[in-house]
Amino acid sequence: MSDDAILTLLREALSDRVDTTPATLDAARADKSGHAAAGAPLAVVHARSIDDVQHTMRIAHRTGTPVVTRGAGTGLAGGANAGAGEIALSVRGMDRILEVRPDDLLAVVEPGIINADLNNVLAADGLWWAPDPASRAISTVGGNIATGAGGLLCAKYGVVRDAVLGVDVVLADGTLVRFGHRSVKGVTGLDLTSLMIGSEGTLGVIVGATLKLRRRVPGHARTLTATFPDVRAAAVASAAVTASGVQPAIMELMDAASLAAVHALLELPAPTPGEAQLTVQTDGPAADAEAESIAATLAAAGGLVRLAADQAEGERLLAIRRSMHPAMETLGTTLIEDVSVPRSMLPAMFDEIARVEREHGLPIPTVCHAGDGNLHPNFVFDGPDVPEEVWHAADDLFRSALRLGGTLTGEHGIGVLKRRWLADELGDDQWRLQREITRVFDPTGILNPGKVFTH
Amino acid sequence: MSDDAILTLLREALSDRVDTTPATLDAARADKSGHAAAGAPLAVVHARSIDDVQHTMRIAHRTGTPVVTRGAGTGLAGGANAGAGEIALSVRGMDRILEVRPDDLLAVVEPGIINADLNNVLAADGLWWAPDPASRAISTVGGNIATGAGGLLCAKYGVVRDAVLGVDVVLADGTLVRFGHRSVKGVTGLDLTSLMIGSEGTLGVIVGATLKLRRRVPGHARTLTATFPDVRAAAVASAAVTASGVQPAIMELMDAASLAAVHALLELPAPTPGEAQLTVQTDGPAADAEAESIAATLAAAGGLVRLAADQAEGERLLAIRRSMHPAMETLGTTLIEDVSVPRSMLPAMFDEIARVEREHGLPIPTVCHAGDGNLHPNFVFDGPDVPEEVWHAADDLFRSALRLGGTLTGEHGIGVLKRRWLADELGDDQWRLQREITRVFDPTGILNPGKVFTH
Repeated sequence: MSDDAILTLLREALSDRVDTTPATLDAARADKSGHAAAGAPLAVVHARSIDDVQHTMRIAHRTGTPVVTRGAGTGLAGGANAGAGEIALSVRGMDRILEVRPDDLLAVVEPGIINADLNNVLAADGLWWAPDPASRAISTVGGNIATGAGGLLCAKYGVVRDAVLGVDVVLADGTLVRFGHRSVKGVTGLDLTSLMIGSEGTLGVIVGATLKLRRRVPGHARTLTATFPDVRAAAVASAAVTASGVQPAIMELMDAASLAAVHALLELPAPTPGEAQLTVQTDGPAADAEAESIAATLAAAGGLVRLAADQAEGERLLAIRRSMHPAMETLGTTLIEDVSVPRSMLPAMFDEIARVEREHGLPIPTVCHAGDGNLHPNFVFDGPDVPEEVWHAADDLFRSALRLGGTLTGEHGIGVLKRRWLADELGDDQWRLQREITRVFDPTGILNPGKVFTH
Repeated sequence: MSDDAILTLLREALSDRVDTTPATLDAARADKSGHAAAGAPLAVVHARSIDDVQHTMRIAHRTGTPVVTRGAGTGLAGGANAGAGEIALSVRGMDRILEVRPDDLLAVVEPGIINADLNNVLAADGLWWAPDPASRAISTVGGNIATGAGGLLCAKYGVVRDAVLGVDVVLADGTLVRFGHRSVKGVTGLDLTSLMIGSEGTLGVIVGATLKLRRRVPGHARTLTATFPDVRAAAVASAAVTASGVQPAIMELMDAASLAAVHALLELPAPTPGEAQLTVQTDGPAADAEAESIAATLAAAGGLVRLAADQAEGERLLAIRRSMHPAMETLGTTLIEDVSVPRSMLPAMFDEIARVEREHGLPIPTVCHAGDGNLHPNFVFDGPDVPEEVWHAADDLFRSALRLGGTLTGEHGIGVLKRRWLADELGDDQWRLQREITRVFDPTGILNPGKVFTH
């Protein structure tokens, strides 16, 4: 069927929710990875309801048209980029909070609500939804679920799979199904809720979620930084904190290049060349004692420790870490890698990054969620396309992470940017099994084709 | 192929690991539910290695022979019962701990290790694996994963899916695959680790697991009980504790009939007729303050509170709750239901249980993990078969739980005993989807046929 005929069907069913303005179509081609799809989608559907999503999927199913589900477009792997011949189905406008139950510690939400907006509302009841990707101010809860987004607090407060009780999903043919449960426990049948988490639009459209909430942590957080002569020393120190048994809420590591870039962006005095920094935050009733214990561990590991005097100073220290992505953007186009290794392997992984920098002749500014072993090595270059030498270096780096018992992506997902390595990690047998599972959900291959899986 | 020919193939490949002694075959027919399969399996294979499991599956695959994977046989839903024409594949003998990494908070184990045995070893390193089903002294880690077993600590310390990073699986055709990762975070591809949790032997044979550990909670636990004039008052009080924001480690509820049966078993003075009891334990650095806060909440709700003076008394109070299953066994054959509801719905669910007792003329002694809303209503009868009137009452009770936003099974699984209700909860569309996923893993239908799914 021609693009025009498909557009006519969409407009008949969805009238003004069908958007073909060139700027909208162009925006739907890309996410925050900098990567853009070839060509522009034939339309963006701004769904306002489950009904809208079902209508869209029924038309797509009938006409064999690929559908790319989008939230706020803040992904970092190109997973929601929509190209020629595809419908971009935006659920960003489905942003209602349907229910908050403090007594049951759950909330039921639509997928398009922004993570931070949800948490602002929950705060009034003394509650929060723990997943806190660095993009929390701009990314949607549905997108957080679809990518399995991580964040800074995962070692202490869990990953997305620990914070979702159920999802409502529109399948490829427009059927609505509800996975999961509202109770703390529930093992009725297969856990399709977990299967949806991190499925990156390949299994269905998430149109609702039942979230597991926490009560807000009482008391004040304590923040400290420690600087080290080099990044390896900082990595060794962070592993010592984990091994000490004290669990920080946040433990972030910035290498020298990252630190320099952020200091330049924020117009702070330049750091001592080569120095790397850990930023640590403790919270809860034992925050003071834990901060002091961690300070002692870091000092014993050779760090120069600075304990923030108050909340405001703590926020200023953390702002340096939070400015990493904007700082990289000032340098050029960025390919952000996302490998994750067992925490004890952090020093070895930093050795590998140094080796890759040396052997490939490329700087790789790296930040790291040191509390959980998730590293973001950044490749910076000019222009929209990733140069081949960067891919070679990224390939080397990824294989190093696998050798150390790590994984290709800790929290960003596979999308298009990492799909070529998927089978290397999964093995061919598991790759085929996963591919066949997607075919159960999507027999005609219209859900986000070309993402995650290469064919 | 004849049973004899299959046995010959098994013996050629597995020699003395193939067991056909009548007592062994008979034992493999049943689990702790009291339900037994019709007929006896053709053999029990005592696997000692992944290789043994692969050999067994290859033969089963080639000959079209059904395979029922078993651990310690402590299930409560008949999910591991093996009958005529089936191979019972026991992984109980694969019980090694392959790796413990305190610095990475993970352990790699074989599936047959007993939960309590693992935790005894981990305790030496100040570690623990949090899932603690009431059967922890006799059930295996692999079985805990395969059923998604719960326990007493789930509201505070999570369910099995929060405590497993990866599983190694032998597929229906004998292929070995490894799902998951060793890092805190990991979103590479679909989450097949979670899909295996609670899959009850229908997707593959779990031959290894990478477990997410916690550090042991420091300090002493505090235990208290509170008695109430009736079970509804106790349920209302438990919901008040949850709503108060203080998170107990354990909060168990016993109704009058349960309490009376346990007191009789333990030769304690008979409780006041009609009285129900909550048993609460707090732990961690704030254990004392939390126990006092909960005591105040329970007293305000009309409870007569008794705070244990020391650890020994605390253990005695908890032992009453832990004796529930043996106490029921003294009364007759027991069908243990396992519904789970949102915590705020506990009082309403107890109202429904009272209604079902009244309308069906059956006593239903009930214990409840009140901290997470998981109830175990017990039906007691004579003889091995569940009488039809008990099924009618159970059906009524299950539909009540669903109406209250609950689920059929919180922690025991579907097995054979609850399969007839699976589609009622999932809906036909989701039921079909789940069934098709099992076919991806098991195209010829040899993995635990007739369990979970009815056809």
